[in-house]
Amino acid sequence: MKRSIGARTVLYAHPVLIVGTYDRSMRPNAMAVSWGGVCCSLPPCVAISVQRTRYTYTNLMEQEAFTISIPPAVYIKQADYFGIASGREVDKFAATGLTPIKSELVNAPYIEEFPVVLECKVIHVHDIGLHTQFLGEILDVKIDDAVLGEDGRPDISKIKPLVFDSPTSSYYGIGQFLAQAFVAGKELMR
Amino acid sequence: MKRSIGARTVLYAHPVLIVGTYDRSMRPNAMAVSWGGVCCSLPPCVAISVQRTRYTYTNLMEQEAFTISIPPAVYIKQADYFGIASGREVDKFAATGLTPIKSELVNAPYIEEFPVVLECKVIHVHDIGLHTQFLGEILDVKIDDAVLGEDGRPDISKIKPLVFDSPTSSYYGIGQFLAQAFVAGKELMR
Repeated sequence: MKRSIGARTVLYAHPVLIVGTYDRSMRPNAMAVSWGGVCCSLPPCVAISVQRTRYTYTNLMEQEAFTISIPPAVYIKQADYFGIASGREVDKFAATGLTPIKSELVNAPYIEEFPVVLECKVIHVHDIGLHTQFLGEILDVKIDDAVLGEDGRPDISKIKPLVFDSPTSSYYGIGQFLAQAFVAGKELMR
Repeated sequence: MKRSIGARTVLYAHPVLIVGTYDRSMRPNAMAVSWGGVCCSLPPCVAISVQRTRYTYTNLMEQEAFTISIPPAVYIKQADYFGIASGREVDKFAATGLTPIKSELVNAPYIEEFPVVLECKVIHVHDIGLHTQFLGEILDVKIDDAVLGEDGRPDISKIKPLVFDSPTSSYYGIGQFLAQAFVAGKELMR
């Protein structure tokens, strides 16, 4: 039996993305975003949603560029801090001790200590309501050697990304491998 | 040391969403989508990306409505099948034995056996490239009593949603609770 719980942003799985931007004085900032995800394969693009009141919103509008750094579980406190502090009031990199690295491809900083980084240029901006959606074309992905598998592919069990659970405002890790995609369902093909 | 792996749709965590639509003869279809996520809190909205060649694309353009049913791990084969078969050629509900239920709010079917369902009306369509992004306003969320926690909130450990790993085309489960969001980072506040 299903019951209505109202119009809410319940969805699984929400990502935890750390969005890196510069302000007009080239001061680096980073913000946690869970309203986002890939939105196109070719060109490869990602969508992130940010409220107009955020410092990151102004940076995105001015620089038309951002990075996404994937926070590993070991940096969960820093990832959460990026979501509760404002770059308008504090230097979040100084507070966390993390290192901003300027992307060579776009005018935005990424986080050296985080193992997977996307460098993106803004190609579309769409005001929806409380949030504005920024579409970024992914110009490159950079990854630490240490989180590559033996086959040379990014290894999720080494990256240890976070999942955000919106109903309980909690972070979870990634669980067990369950099945191979595009294979598991083949036995239902007639 | 970071190395470039090129412009790719690597991101963590990708969701696994089953998008339900009707065609013009009201035949229900369902398709697996990992390029998507919440994109606005108010009004609550979700974005999903679909290629123009898909049967679901035509349905979305004609009906301007869809549902998202969250596949639990126990239905992983069916979820994968929804991503590899085409509703143009087969009746995916007949093939999987799953039950389409007509939403009372929008002209789209959801999957009775899946524990969490979003009912959405299309409010914006944006051609990006290979994929077209559909923004849906979430009109309601429906959930099985069995996956509510003792506190009445949706319990991710009972819902058992899937995570898609794009580099290896694999499905993973949700792992352990790691920390409380908006609390874990407070010790870095000065």
